[in-house]
Amino acid sequence: MNYCCTCGATIAIRTPPGDALPRHVCDACGAIHYRNPRMVVGALAEWDGRILLCRRAIEPRLGKWTLPAGFMEIGETVAQAAARETLEEANARLELHDMYTVISVPQANQVHLFYRARLLDLDFSPGEESLETALFGEHEIPWEEIAFRTVAMTLRHFFTDRISGAFRFHAGEIPPP
Amino acid sequence: MNYCCTCGATIAIRTPPGDALPRHVCDACGAIHYRNPRMVVGALAEWDGRILLCRRAIEPRLGKWTLPAGFMEIGETVAQAAARETLEEANARLELHDMYTVISVPQANQVHLFYRARLLDLDFSPGEESLETALFGEHEIPWEEIAFRTVAMTLRHFFTDRISGAFRFHAGEIPPP
Repeated sequence: MNYCCTCGATIAIRTPPGDALPRHVCDACGAIHYRNPRMVVGALAEWDGRILLCRRAIEPRLGKWTLPAGFMEIGETVAQAAARETLEEANARLELHDMYTVISVPQANQVHLFYRARLLDLDFSPGEESLETALFGEHEIPWEEIAFRTVAMTLRHFFTDRISGAFRFHAGEIPPP
Repeated sequence: MNYCCTCGATIAIRTPPGDALPRHVCDACGAIHYRNPRMVVGALAEWDGRILLCRRAIEPRLGKWTLPAGFMEIGETVAQAAARETLEEANARLELHDMYTVISVPQANQVHLFYRARLLDLDFSPGEESLETALFGEHEIPWEEIAFRTVAMTLRHFFTDRISGAFRFHAGEIPPP
C-alpha cells in the first residue's frame, strides 16, 4: 500500500495514538487503513462415502487437488460462501451440514473454514477455476497432490471421525512450514 | 475506495473478465482491490460460574456491555486474537478452552468468533477501550445493555449448554435487523 485509497495522498507507516501496532496512515485526510486476515471458505461434500475434490486450474497450486473453497465475499454468510464456492468451482449443489473445521493460517493471514455437506446429485463438472472434478473414496485420496494443508487436515479429521460415526467440530492452526 | 493504493490512479468499479462480481479495478496498473469480510474475535471467560464483561468506552455501542473482542490482526491465529483482545480490553489473562461460536453478520461484513476460556486470576481492570470490567452471574447479565447480538447469542448458548453440562460448538448467523 503506497497511496491512500480515500484521497490519493502518499501513505505513511506508523503507530497511531492509542494503538499498539504500526498502521498505514494518511497524513493528508487522517484515514487509517487497517489490514485484516481473510477467510477462505469451502465444503467437504460427500456422496455415498466419497468426497468431491477439484483439481486447480489457477495458481497457487495449479494442478493440485482441493476441496472446493475460496475467499468469502462481502455481504454473505459463511454457509452461503461454502455453497457458492462449491457451485463456482464444481457446478455442484449441496445440502450443507455442520460447520466442521476452522483452521488459522497465520503465515498467509488467512483462516480456512469448511462445512460438511452432502451432494444433492452427481451432476457436477469443472468450473472456470478447476481442471477436473471427481469423487474420491478414503483410499483413493491423492494425499501427495493435495493443494493446501488445511484441506488435508480437514480430510484427515473426516476419515478419523467417520470410524467412530461421530463428527465433531475441529478448530486448529497450521504451524509455519 | 477512490484511488488505487498501489499506484495512486483513479479507481473504476467493474466486473473483471472471468469474475462474477463488480470490483475496485485500477486501469492504470491493473490491480484488482478485493474487499472481504473481517473477523471479530473474543472470549467468554469464566470465573467460578460468572462471566467477564467489559463496558465499552468507544463507539459503536459506547456505554454498552460486551464480551472482550475485537478485529483479528494480520499474522495471528484466532486463539491468539481472543487472548490478545481480552488482555487489551480487560487486562485479563486466560486459559483458552474450545472455540465456542462462529456467527456470520453479513450486513456488517463480519464474522464473529468466540472462545470459551477460564480467567487465570481476578487481577483484571478496564483497558483503554473499556469504561468498566466486571463479573456477572447468569441472573445479573444486563441483557438490555448488551452491545452486540453475537455477544447475547453466545451468552445464551453458554447458559443453555451449562444446564446439560455439555458445551458444544455453535455456528450461526444474525439475520438483518
